[in-house]
Amino acid sequence: MQSLKRLLVGEPKATAQVPHERLSNPVALAVFSSDALSSVAYATEEILLVLVLAGATALTWSSGIAVAIGLLLLILTVSYRQTIQAYPAGGGAYLVSKDNLGVPAGLVAGAALLIDYVLTVSVSVAAGVAAITSAWPALYGQRVLLGIVAVAAIAIANLRGLRESGRLFAAPTYLFIISMLGLIVLGLARLLWGETPVVPLPSSPVVPVAAVTPFLILRAFASGCTALTGVEAISDGVPAFRKPEADNAKRTIAWMAGILLILFLGITFLAREYEVLPREGETVVSQLARMIVGTSPFYYVIQAATALILVLAANTSFADFPRLSYFLARDRFLPRQLVNRGDRLVFSNGVIVLALLASLLLVLFRGETHALIPLYAVGVFISFTLSQVGMVRRHLRLRETGWQRGILINGAGAVTTAVVLTVVGGTKFVNGAFLVVVMIPILVGMFYAIHRHYRQVAEQLRLKHFDLPPRATHAVLLLVSDVHMGILNALNYARAISPEVEAVYVSLDEEATKQMRLRWGLWSGGVPLVVLESPYRSVVQPLIEYVNKIQVERKVDFVTLVLPEFIPARWWHHLLHNQTALRIRAHFLFRKGTVVINVRFHLET
Amino acid sequence: MQSLKRLLVGEPKATAQVPHERLSNPVALAVFSSDALSSVAYATEEILLVLVLAGATALTWSSGIAVAIGLLLLILTVSYRQTIQAYPAGGGAYLVSKDNLGVPAGLVAGAALLIDYVLTVSVSVAAGVAAITSAWPALYGQRVLLGIVAVAAIAIANLRGLRESGRLFAAPTYLFIISMLGLIVLGLARLLWGETPVVPLPSSPVVPVAAVTPFLILRAFASGCTALTGVEAISDGVPAFRKPEADNAKRTIAWMAGILLILFLGITFLAREYEVLPREGETVVSQLARMIVGTSPFYYVIQAATALILVLAANTSFADFPRLSYFLARDRFLPRQLVNRGDRLVFSNGVIVLALLASLLLVLFRGETHALIPLYAVGVFISFTLSQVGMVRRHLRLRETGWQRGILINGAGAVTTAVVLTVVGGTKFVNGAFLVVVMIPILVGMFYAIHRHYRQVAEQLRLKHFDLPPRATHAVLLLVSDVHMGILNALNYARAISPEVEAVYVSLDEEATKQMRLRWGLWSGGVPLVVLESPYRSVVQPLIEYVNKIQVERKVDFVTLVLPEFIPARWWHHLLHNQTALRIRAHFLFRKGTVVINVRFHLET
Repeated sequence: MQSLKRLLVGEPKATAQVPHERLSNPVALAVFSSDALSSVAYATEEILLVLVLAGATALTWSSGIAVAIGLLLLILTVSYRQTIQAYPAGGGAYLVSKDNLGVPAGLVAGAALLIDYVLTVSVSVAAGVAAITSAWPALYGQRVLLGIVAVAAIAIANLRGLRESGRLFAAPTYLFIISMLGLIVLGLARLLWGETPVVPLPSSPVVPVAAVTPFLILRAFASGCTALTGVEAISDGVPAFRKPEADNAKRTIAWMAGILLILFLGITFLAREYEVLPREGETVVSQLARMIVGTSPFYYVIQAATALILVLAANTSFADFPRLSYFLARDRFLPRQLVNRGDRLVFSNGVIVLALLASLLLVLFRGETHALIPLYAVGVFISFTLSQVGMVRRHLRLRETGWQRGILINGAGAVTTAVVLTVVGGTKFVNGAFLVVVMIPILVGMFYAIHRHYRQVAEQLRLKHFDLPPRATHAVLLLVSDVHMGILNALNYARAISPEVEAVYVSLDEEATKQMRLRWGLWSGGVPLVVLESPYRSVVQPLIEYVNKIQVERKVDFVTLVLPEFIPARWWHHLLHNQTALRIRAHFLFRKGTVVINVRFHLET
Repeated sequence: MQSLKRLLVGEPKATAQVPHERLSNPVALAVFSSDALSSVAYATEEILLVLVLAGATALTWSSGIAVAIGLLLLILTVSYRQTIQAYPAGGGAYLVSKDNLGVPAGLVAGAALLIDYVLTVSVSVAAGVAAITSAWPALYGQRVLLGIVAVAAIAIANLRGLRESGRLFAAPTYLFIISMLGLIVLGLARLLWGETPVVPLPSSPVVPVAAVTPFLILRAFASGCTALTGVEAISDGVPAFRKPEADNAKRTIAWMAGILLILFLGITFLAREYEVLPREGETVVSQLARMIVGTSPFYYVIQAATALILVLAANTSFADFPRLSYFLARDRFLPRQLVNRGDRLVFSNGVIVLALLASLLLVLFRGETHALIPLYAVGVFISFTLSQVGMVRRHLRLRETGWQRGILINGAGAVTTAVVLTVVGGTKFVNGAFLVVVMIPILVGMFYAIHRHYRQVAEQLRLKHFDLPPRATHAVLLLVSDVHMGILNALNYARAISPEVEAVYVSLDEEATKQMRLRWGLWSGGVPLVVLESPYRSVVQPLIEYVNKIQVERKVDFVTLVLPEFIPARWWHHLLHNQTALRIRAHFLFRKGTVVINVRFHLET
């Protein structure tokens, strides 16, 4: 086990090695934007998937919806620049909500974020796998397996202590940005010169199953809102920027919003113009790329860059989930194991929990991006809304310079996100959003239950009028079954911890008992032997009764039970010996005022 | 767990309740003959199954073969009457072989018998299920499940301490004997009066795939020899007879042989005359019964009686296997757990092992009697032969009155059984007998390995020049992580077992360490605090190094490590606390010279 762990995770690192890297703006853009930018890979497709229910003509609505989402993006960006200004030490929704709206709101935001991080991993990995299986359709049947392998690989990289190191992240992110921009430019150029697609796609006739209703449009809008997931990432990571941190972060979030806007609007517009229909087995982006550049090497670059940035997006959750778990655990709302750093200075338990939950979702939803999407946006918009409302409360409370403008911005943000939350929750409720709505109160309830437990424990362990008594009284019983080296070894130990040891023998057979008395007298050096009768051949029962009797009669603080045991040289030898010591240990484990000591004698062969 | 066990197995019984029932001859016949008599249910069919390979005309050989097997039965019966005379305390093959031919021969007989008992259960249950599914063909698809349920039911009955009580056994055995005799008489009557079968059976034409060779005849004979399994049972159980035990047992074995002879020859003769062909889904006995009595109530009585006596036959192995295991374990050739009597005075571990092995065989061989038969007879004839050879040696050694006649009888028995063993082994080798030939040396090797281990343990535990030293020296370390009630409780205990306790603190954080020193000084009552640095945040590693250092420098006999621990009030609270104590315990478990003591503080809520 240990060597397997070393192979996967590497040698341990010293506590003093916790790094403090500062990132330049272009590198920070790459590090913090992969989640937001990568949603270009699936957001357009999710809009089309809803619209196509009303037939091919309904697809023309996509551009309008994309523009609405673009506006929302601008509002969010301006709002989050306020948050960056206010929380230069990092302003995640948990902290901002707890700080300004109180603990319950903070916990709701925390629960929403935890769910969100798990979904980011599942959705991103599912979409990344879809990018790969679009290019190599033979792999389509193995998508769940591929997804789980990807999650495991990311988890192991994180357990090894993968830092959000600039070099690693910059290359795939910029490769993605450049290849998408290139695709959009080429696509627009083809349209202008009126050229036909390189690879004409099979146009299967679409049978409308619904009408173009306002509800349908809202549903399409709600699906497209997944493009906005991750835009808050920069506001969480302000301390990683160079000085002046807040200014650099604000500049970077603006850049990110601009790039996201261009890519998302560009892809959605082209998809409409090229009349791409969403279909099983190939993503919309892949279809578009094949129509514009054919199955050229550039096509494969686009698919690879898409898959890579999606893996990076999943990876950001592997930094965020354990960090938020750490905050919650530090505040005693999650198990304290999540506070510990592992061998490689990572919050390893959080990484493992996240990997398991994300893999579970991939299995349950069969690695389908579309199936997971309805769950995704709800959590995001809950934390957006709480965060913005928190900012409004903060402006009201502090009344810093320009607080009126702040209220206006964050107020607009809060109202918009609240409205979108209602739309997302309402239109997607039956498709899966209800799961999140159910999970959040459950998680918050769990947080409080854990908190209550820790408070009760602390109360019980608190030192009050405690005077250390001069010495506790205790009775030491040595359980003997025979007279041999192992027993005398334990007797030796028992005499070391108390001058008054009592040997206890459970009698199962008259003849053997007679023998035992004789031999004990010869070898024990005067330690008294108590013989307990056992009509039902149980060793444990008479022992329990005897210990009861001692506790009642002698009023000692502790009864110590010394159990001689021998350790066989080979594992299968254990099968050849009675496991009486184990059973006795189990019986006394949860009993007050008794201490069980196993004294082991090691056999050589 | 405990309450489930009580429900299935019942309340424990006191050791003094071991019963000593004596059986009258008719009852003893029922108790000890179910194994032998029940083989009438399948032995004829096994002969026909081989002969039918050479076509329908070859079936006429069946009567001749049955007569040969009948002669063999007479020889065995006379031989075993000698064994009864010589071993009035019970003469199983293991004891007789070990006594007269030495330990290795005894172990071979023991291995053969253990295999045999497992097969008796599997074959009897499979045949019993076949009797039921012949009458209710709808159950045929569930035969493996039915078999396992039957084994489990018999095992539970035995774990409850089902005694071989006369009343329970007499009824089904005599019901079987009477209904079979009735069937034979009615069948013969029909033949004499020249009546046609009540239910004419579909006569599917048989395509011969083999010729009538001597090998085929020998194979059919070998298959039929399964009729002889269990004839030795009375010789194992002589002490259960009324006085004079040996005389009563000899009389009873003669009766049993007579009944078996009539039933087996009768059924085989009728099967030939009625031209019954073995076929899948219905046993030969069931076909015969339907031809003679139709599907009348009497037909169902026959099938039920057959199934019942087969269950009883399986049940005899549940008495024999644990008893033989007990003998082998007492002689240190099997794990000593097999010596213990369970709550209900039964050798429970043996019962459980037998049930598991028999169920495994039923699954592996899909509940098919025919598939199991080739394995069956080999083990039986190995133990027959060894037992008879042992008797010859005994006569030669003791030269009691009439020893020459004894040698003649047992010599004839030995030669006959050895010849049959060769025939059975040879003709059935590729069909499965080789499995038994392979298993026996493996089992004997295992017996010796276990024996060697126990001898080595005894040698290492033996008291030699051992003088109890005045008192062992020990160092007591108390591992502390904080200062609270749980820790002070453990400190209190540590001070009870030694006046010189040392508290050990693993430092993970400078600030916390400073706090700890301060608080320890205030509360510990002067117990020194050792602070261990841990650059890699491991609690276990620095502790191991410190214990090493103490063992080297202070040369103490024992280092005692006291671990404070608190026991949460609810099971799920365990998830909320670090399991450090558990990990430390695991690290020191197999280390010499260290003793780990968990001192527990019980939380109320």
